[in-house]
Amino acid sequence: MYIVIEGIDTAGKSTQLDILQDTYKGAIFTKEPGGTKLGLKLRQMVLNGEAKSKIAEMFLFLADRAEHIEECVKNNLNKMIISDRSIISGISYASSTSSLDINILTSLNLIATSNILPSHIIILELSKEELINRLSQKKHDFIEARGIEYLLNIQSKMKEIVNLLNLNYIIIDASLSIKEISKKIEGFINE
Amino acid sequence: MYIVIEGIDTAGKSTQLDILQDTYKGAIFTKEPGGTKLGLKLRQMVLNGEAKSKIAEMFLFLADRAEHIEECVKNNLNKMIISDRSIISGISYASSTSSLDINILTSLNLIATSNILPSHIIILELSKEELINRLSQKKHDFIEARGIEYLLNIQSKMKEIVNLLNLNYIIIDASLSIKEISKKIEGFINE
Repeated sequence: MYIVIEGIDTAGKSTQLDILQDTYKGAIFTKEPGGTKLGLKLRQMVLNGEAKSKIAEMFLFLADRAEHIEECVKNNLNKMIISDRSIISGISYASSTSSLDINILTSLNLIATSNILPSHIIILELSKEELINRLSQKKHDFIEARGIEYLLNIQSKMKEIVNLLNLNYIIIDASLSIKEISKKIEGFINE
Repeated sequence: MYIVIEGIDTAGKSTQLDILQDTYKGAIFTKEPGGTKLGLKLRQMVLNGEAKSKIAEMFLFLADRAEHIEECVKNNLNKMIISDRSIISGISYASSTSSLDINILTSLNLIATSNILPSHIIILELSKEELINRLSQKKHDFIEARGIEYLLNIQSKMKEIVNLLNLNYIIIDASLSIKEISKKIEGFINE
């Protein structure tokens, strides 16, 4: 079981991951990017702006993804893996900075994951109003500074990709209460 | 003019590059991998074995290539660029460690180079006998330790790829004298 939580910043992924850690104590909790030693280093290099080329930056994220699948996912598919982000975020964010077609980005990402895909995808979805509200309460970091439309575009790409790849997903309204969301997530996992 | 020198280890690339540096003082001399600050760091990470996944390793080399094209090649195509290795080595070496088809590897590499390809490719070719002879005189490094057949396979891949991409190339017998080789290279550049 390879479960992933997806959602743009402020959607509440971390809160739900904390609850999942209490509920599923035997599960393997991991994340992308930065879920491996190599990935952590690559993520830091990207954050430092060390890649001048946007294409180089994309390949660094793909290297992170490939390493993560190899080290954390591939040999644990018989266990419960719960990951903060995945190929879904990967393609969505890449498509916002790349001139490459979404089908090409998907092919690149499937090479990175050796065609391994999540069995369960949870997307926490924010309305524009709720996103504006939440961002106004938070110190903006690098990605958030790119703006509301940017984030909403990523969010809609996430939904496009789970459909394109014909994956098993649930979209949950992120403005529901923490408890309501966690109940929906648990229901989806135990379906 | 984007000239590249290709050849397996011990083929004599460095010697010819030294001569070219004396002949074409105004040219930009560069190399792959490790021709940029990012690339140098990535190359070192690969040499340290920091990527456990072979696919991650491939993406690190692609990131190096993309950064190199962006930083050193793209804006200098109106000048003379002379590079130690290029996409040709990139695809050849990748095909020896990857299970991916050569056409897919080529597509990945063309994404990395934004479809920029060398205008002149010089391949220094070694016979099996000459390769054995040269390796026996040299302390083997990591790649050479993989063996004679491995290197000859890379060399034949290089020839396959320049044909596949329909590029402008010359193959020079690396067992000729240093002077004879440099004369052939100069003739090819000035054609």
